[in-house]
Amino acid sequence: MGEPKLTDVTTLTPDALRGRVEAILSKAGINAQQAGAIARVIVAGERDACKSHGIYRIEGVLRAVKAGKARPDAVPVLEQNDGSAIVRVDARSGFSNAAFELGMPVLAERARRFGIAALAINDCTHFAALWPEVEALTDRGLAAFAMCPSYSTVAPAGGTAPLLGTNPFAFGWPRLDSPPYVFDFATSVAARGEIELHRRAGKPLPEGWAIDAGGQPTTDPEAALAGAMLPFGGHKGSAIGTMIELLAGVMIGDFTSREALDYLGSTAFAPRHGELIVAFSPEAFAAGRPGSPLAHAEVLFEAIVGQGARLPSQRRFAARARAEKDGIPLTAEEIRQLDRLEELGLDAVV
Amino acid sequence: MGEPKLTDVTTLTPDALRGRVEAILSKAGINAQQAGAIARVIVAGERDACKSHGIYRIEGVLRAVKAGKARPDAVPVLEQNDGSAIVRVDARSGFSNAAFELGMPVLAERARRFGIAALAINDCTHFAALWPEVEALTDRGLAAFAMCPSYSTVAPAGGTAPLLGTNPFAFGWPRLDSPPYVFDFATSVAARGEIELHRRAGKPLPEGWAIDAGGQPTTDPEAALAGAMLPFGGHKGSAIGTMIELLAGVMIGDFTSREALDYLGSTAFAPRHGELIVAFSPEAFAAGRPGSPLAHAEVLFEAIVGQGARLPSQRRFAARARAEKDGIPLTAEEIRQLDRLEELGLDAVV
Repeated sequence: MGEPKLTDVTTLTPDALRGRVEAILSKAGINAQQAGAIARVIVAGERDACKSHGIYRIEGVLRAVKAGKARPDAVPVLEQNDGSAIVRVDARSGFSNAAFELGMPVLAERARRFGIAALAINDCTHFAALWPEVEALTDRGLAAFAMCPSYSTVAPAGGTAPLLGTNPFAFGWPRLDSPPYVFDFATSVAARGEIELHRRAGKPLPEGWAIDAGGQPTTDPEAALAGAMLPFGGHKGSAIGTMIELLAGVMIGDFTSREALDYLGSTAFAPRHGELIVAFSPEAFAAGRPGSPLAHAEVLFEAIVGQGARLPSQRRFAARARAEKDGIPLTAEEIRQLDRLEELGLDAVV
Repeated sequence: MGEPKLTDVTTLTPDALRGRVEAILSKAGINAQQAGAIARVIVAGERDACKSHGIYRIEGVLRAVKAGKARPDAVPVLEQNDGSAIVRVDARSGFSNAAFELGMPVLAERARRFGIAALAINDCTHFAALWPEVEALTDRGLAAFAMCPSYSTVAPAGGTAPLLGTNPFAFGWPRLDSPPYVFDFATSVAARGEIELHRRAGKPLPEGWAIDAGGQPTTDPEAALAGAMLPFGGHKGSAIGTMIELLAGVMIGDFTSREALDYLGSTAFAPRHGELIVAFSPEAFAAGRPGSPLAHAEVLFEAIVGQGARLPSQRRFAARARAEKDGIPLTAEEIRQLDRLEELGLDAVV
């Protein structure tokens, strides 16, 4: 998009933007618990300059509500069994965000008590990245990974048709004096949106991204959208995508990516399924062993950076530092979009 | 190697081969607990026609003992805290196998009790694949993953020098009437042995496998061995390899791959470090949700196979079925090798 002209830019504090997003969501009939949680994640996306997970997502939230795919009045329910390391939240057909906020402190407590613990979220609509989840846990000194199915758009390695989802996987490790070590990626070679961007630009896809409806390799974005994407890293990425279907779909008693697509009937809405987050207490795992795990990890990070490689998420953390100091820059067009969404509510979307 | 001539082949039952391997290890001064556990894993490799993890590994075990890198008299020690979901076994500088056998039943019990549990093994020499670990857990109706560092031979994505290990990752899911869903792979593009095979054959490497000592891409096996291998799947595989260093090295208070290499001073021996296994009870995770997770998973597997893709490990399971029915075929050369190892003990290796 290039740098917006200075005169075009309005700078909002994260809190001010959160207020605006919450107002839009409330106006659309989304209850306060969900509106707050969704707004926090959307503002985190804007703050970190992840435009694809920022205010751009508001319309998707409103569309899911308007189409009856997500319940605006859902109140997530925490189910806990005190002797278990599994925490479960039933999102009650709402969005994942409030369900995660409800379960996360209990997950953190269980991870500290048992050393390892898991949070299973069921029956949610999921539109966000997974790094907000793992960062909520690294903020509490825990390591964590998060995963979820999506909907069938990816063929398993050696296959010919969509079955797996783009199934994201995220991991976080807490650091002492720096933002955490965090990665968050799709287990497909590319995100579906990237194929769409190639289509709009009339550009061929790189080799290895996709197959056509006949199961043959293709570089034609149209053919790819009618066919299937491929997993990253060949059979290894395919295996990880399958593991995510099993652990974060089947095991927690929720939809696989194929079932999510069957349920929604279209990839036009954010997928509905479950999510699995596993948290580890480095302190508990390292107990009785020499040294401190957090200090020890820094040696590894220094060795990575020291040879010229980058740690993941650094661009995001740099944007965050700027936003926390100077505010979040929004273009006049983006502000008009917020105004429009607030004015029209659900009427702003089809 | 081609099919051996029938007259060249001796067929041993798995038990008979186990007896032979145990005798070799005992003769070399390895105590009964370790010899039994090592022999079970080596025989499992031969039974599954994984020649690279079969009797070929005996020499490596003997070399590690002879060089003082692994203790033949080590007795692993189980450290358990009854309220924790972390089980720890100190291998006391022995091999990982007996340590795993000691900790595994406790891990399974904890996974059933808490829903999720972890086994950390410390101070072990590790020469085996990880599928024996995850299959021991799928045999008990649990899902599991296992991971460990190795030694620095892999550059992080964007880097120029070895830092990460080939860091294997394995996952298993129990199936009702079939062998489990199991994968087990290195997080490098290729195993180091494959580069060595290209070198011996005088063949160039495929693009993307390795960089030279200057950090530049190379297809020359010699230059690759002097440089670094690359992670599978670019920055995503690199991130997973880094996660394994953190969880299965740093977090459990054990060596990273770089520290393992510094400790051994050479890649000539099996690496020494720790290992992390996490077990999940599908029954506990699915409790209160509709349907059975194991039956539900079969729908996914059928969809994978139904579109012509393969499930991982099927060739191994087919070999296993043959071996259980007809015995394990060994060539006359392999039998002579066993005879020689039994006769010479540690004198058979340098």
